[in-house]
Amino acid sequence: MKHIYAIGIGTGNLEHMTIQAINAMNGADLVFIPTKGAQKEELADVRRAICERYLKQADGKIIEFAVPLRETKERSYGQSVDEWHAAIAATYRRLISDLPENGTAAFLVWGDPSLYDSTLRILERVRDKVEFDLTVIPGITSIQALAASHRIPISLVGKSVEITTGRRLAEEGLKTESTVVMLDGIQAFTKIDDPDAEIFWGAYLGTQDEIIRAGRLGDVADDIVRTRAEARERHGWIMDIYLLRKGRDFQD
Amino acid sequence: MKHIYAIGIGTGNLEHMTIQAINAMNGADLVFIPTKGAQKEELADVRRAICERYLKQADGKIIEFAVPLRETKERSYGQSVDEWHAAIAATYRRLISDLPENGTAAFLVWGDPSLYDSTLRILERVRDKVEFDLTVIPGITSIQALAASHRIPISLVGKSVEITTGRRLAEEGLKTESTVVMLDGIQAFTKIDDPDAEIFWGAYLGTQDEIIRAGRLGDVADDIVRTRAEARERHGWIMDIYLLRKGRDFQD
Ligand SMILES: C[S@@+](CC[C@H](N)C(=O)[O-])C[C@H]1O[C@@H](n2cnc3c(N)ncnc32)[C@H](O)[C@@H]1O
Ligand SMILES: C[S@@+](CC[C@H](N)C(=O)[O-])C[C@H]1O[C@@H](n2cnc3c(N)ncnc32)[C@H](O)[C@@H]1O
Repeated sequence: MKHIYAIGIGTGNLEHMTIQAINAMNGADLVFIPTKGAQKEELADVRRAICERYLKQADGKIIEFAVPLRETKERSYGQSVDEWHAAIAATYRRLISDLPENGTAAFLVWGDPSLYDSTLRILERVRDKVEFDLTVIPGITSIQALAASHRIPISLVGKSVEITTGRRLAEEGLKTESTVVMLDGIQAFTKIDDPDAEIFWGAYLGTQDEIIRAGRLGDVADDIVRTRAEARERHGWIMDIYLLRKGRDFQD
Repeated sequence: MKHIYAIGIGTGNLEHMTIQAINAMNGADLVFIPTKGAQKEELADVRRAICERYLKQADGKIIEFAVPLRETKERSYGQSVDEWHAAIAATYRRLISDLPENGTAAFLVWGDPSLYDSTLRILERVRDKVEFDLTVIPGITSIQALAASHRIPISLVGKSVEITTGRRLAEEGLKTESTVVMLDGIQAFTKIDDPDAEIFWGAYLGTQDEIIRAGRLGDVADDIVRTRAEARERHGWIMDIYLLRKGRDFQD
């Protein structure tokens, strides 16, 4: 039986790698690295650096593959993602088919495979044509990287946490004490009419370009919008995440 | 200036340790390990095993301390936690005061310090009396351990995730597509009247005693209640977590 590892690699800091992830990578015959297309080149560089630092035997082991682009024209969001996953699945199917019987290969997944990542669901699509066992190795997420850089808890005592997207935050507003917002291309925090909420924002977390900002939303929102636009301009892309918090510990 | 590390150590699998966590531990003069009291002895054992495996120089470096018990009688939940934190803060204050000027010490935090853990907020209380710098190192949480063992994503495509406690789930019910429930001593899933929801449950995740169960809530709830009761009886304690899921990817 072929064996596939989906390995969480953390969010840009090479030292986010766990011992379990390092061992799994070293146990694999091949390591697949997504490049170009939908992926930012810098993200491929992080994966290459991880291989360089942690693989004991790298020769001939690293296979780079291009990720198809997502088509959005004349498609609903759901359709567009569905088609895109089908295209990526075709690539995975080829990669896994080429693997020798009893071969082992590793996909390096940004952050943790369970959080707004589709590697696992695309691998499920591939099972119709190729058989393999799957092991998932957890990784540090951008949520934990955000909290660590701000040195704050995400959850208030006994309260709940919502993790959502910029799109949903804009539609639904703040629903709970702690709201973590990811995949936000529209700066949805500027649409929240709650100036007393606190925001803890971070971009390029874990990397050398990390930027963080925190404060009362009413006081710092403009600065974050400006900082974000400048950084995005400079890098050509941005990855950012934030926590919005209402209320305090021990408050009912 | 004294320096404190709050280091996420993962949830029982020694290989959840990140390179960053291992380096921080090795950079510290002292490593504090909570024992007895509120802490299960097995959790202290995991920390001892981590020190044994990863500390290059362990001699005289490990300081064990007893965690005060939480008093609940004639107190609201908030009061009881507040008093308990004050008692733990007194212990931390003593430990940090005893640290030499420019000394460095590490607290080993279960899972990640940002998720239902009070190490950071207790350290904040200590700052009134002792000065120190703080570095937080992220760790694998029980949420990621749960998802990895079940080989599933937590978030559906573009949808949000709620992380909550058993108490709040029982009060508020399922509010979103993916609900992760922690700190549940009351098996709140048995109170959810949605037999078609899916449950992904896990106990002692990452340890040798790990148990997982998954299925349609209506089909597997009884088995989970029974399995949980037996395991709890056998071990004398239990740590469990679950995901409740309604709906599917690409469904509106
Ligand atoms: C497709 S999701 C992948 C999340 C990833 N699986 C994780 O565990 O963090 C991408 C989103 O994650 C967040 N993100 C990932 N890495 C980040 C980083 N280094 N800094 C800030 N945000 C990051 C951003 O919100 C971004 O829009
Ligand atoms: C006080 S919280 C600490 C959470 C921890 N900071 C983390 O990152 O997972 C304790 C709760 O975490 C969950 N938990 C922690 N470790 C676990 C494990 N190994 N298996 C199952 N659940 C676990 C349980 O829901 C438990 O009630």
